[in-house]
Amino acid sequence: MDQTVSLVLFSGTDDKLQSAAVLTVGAAMMGRPVEVFLQYWALDAFRADRILKDHGVAPEAGPEGARAMADQGKPHWSELFGQAKDLGEVRIHACSDSMEMFRITAEDLDPLVDGVWGVASFFREADGPITFI
Amino acid sequence: MDQTVSLVLFSGTDDKLQSAAVLTVGAAMMGRPVEVFLQYWALDAFRADRILKDHGVAPEAGPEGARAMADQGKPHWSELFGQAKDLGEVRIHACSDSMEMFRITAEDLDPLVDGVWGVASFFREADGPITFI
Amino acid sequence: MDQTVSLVLFSGTDDKLQSAAVLTVGAAMMGRPVEVFLQYWALDAFRADRILKDHGVAPEAGPEGARAMADQGKPHWSELFGQAKDLGEVRIHACSDSMEMFRITAEDLDPLVDGVWGVASFFREADGPITFI
Repeated sequence: MDQTVSLVLFSGTDDKLQSAAVLTVGAAMMGRPVEVFLQYWALDAFRADRILKDHGVAPEAGPEGARAMADQGKPHWSELFGQAKDLGEVRIHACSDSMEMFRITAEDLDPLVDGVWGVASFFREADGPITFI
Repeated sequence: MDQTVSLVLFSGTDDKLQSAAVLTVGAAMMGRPVEVFLQYWALDAFRADRILKDHGVAPEAGPEGARAMADQGKPHWSELFGQAKDLGEVRIHACSDSMEMFRITAEDLDPLVDGVWGVASFFREADGPITFI
Repeated sequence: MDQTVSLVLFSGTDDKLQSAAVLTVGAAMMGRPVEVFLQYWALDAFRADRILKDHGVAPEAGPEGARAMADQGKPHWSELFGQAKDLGEVRIHACSDSMEMFRITAEDLDPLVDGVWGVASFFREADGPITFI
């Protein structure tokens, strides 16, 4: 039960990022180390100048679902990731392949991101569940 | 190999819910305990008065894919979850955060759902793979 | 750390398939066995006559994201899966239920696919993380 929870964040919509943040907080509360690996559209959402912008929700949410999310009064997912880092052993790395794809550098990313990793480094630490979101 | 298979159901479209149900049946057949945790749009699909309604499929399915799903003559995914519960140790819990978001209570949910859990309870039982669908 | 990485490929868009291929290469590089199980829209994308076609990207990518993907000059994901098979112990199986749904036979599939499995066979080999993409 002290295996690392490895999360690959692929999607960059606010509903999936909020779900990922809630799971990260829950894992940290239970004393599990968490490795978050940012790829593709999730990486794009962690740019310092975009992180607080509206990233939309899954098309299936519909107007009722989008309204329920907006009205729930929960802290922004970026704040939840910050709380998770305060609670436990949570690290966030950006995928070097996706960095190249978007032509962004480490300075473009929000300070929540601890560094840039290749996919081999991600697997070096992945001794437990690997959850793709 | 007797580790619990922990499934976080996030998506509420019929294709993903059917895939989740097929995986749950397969895991139960192989003697694995399964914990299903319902969040966001998947939780919404488990409301008693909506579970049998059309929840659509992923946009990528296209008309050909949607037709192939409709014509396959498989039992509804809710029936497959029921079969999995008969076969093995399968429990389904609703995420308390998502319950609040949708302002629904335990009585609104289909009887397949065994109760309401916080995310910490989910991680307390998650001693194996954690699969996000 | 020598547990099998079990990947359920559900989505058939080029961004998710490329992410899955990159993860497969990374796991193989680190000496992990990888079992890839093709379902639904991902199975459809592995048909011999469709594998190199344009399968689109997630709606959330937007025009900027789609352009970044197209311009990155990475080998096609099918080539990456081939490289992963050369690097390590990587097997790709098609889900028999999804084969029936699409009414396709083993001959319709790309040679990357090693055979057809039921979901019980998938769980028989799943002694580690189970990642749904």
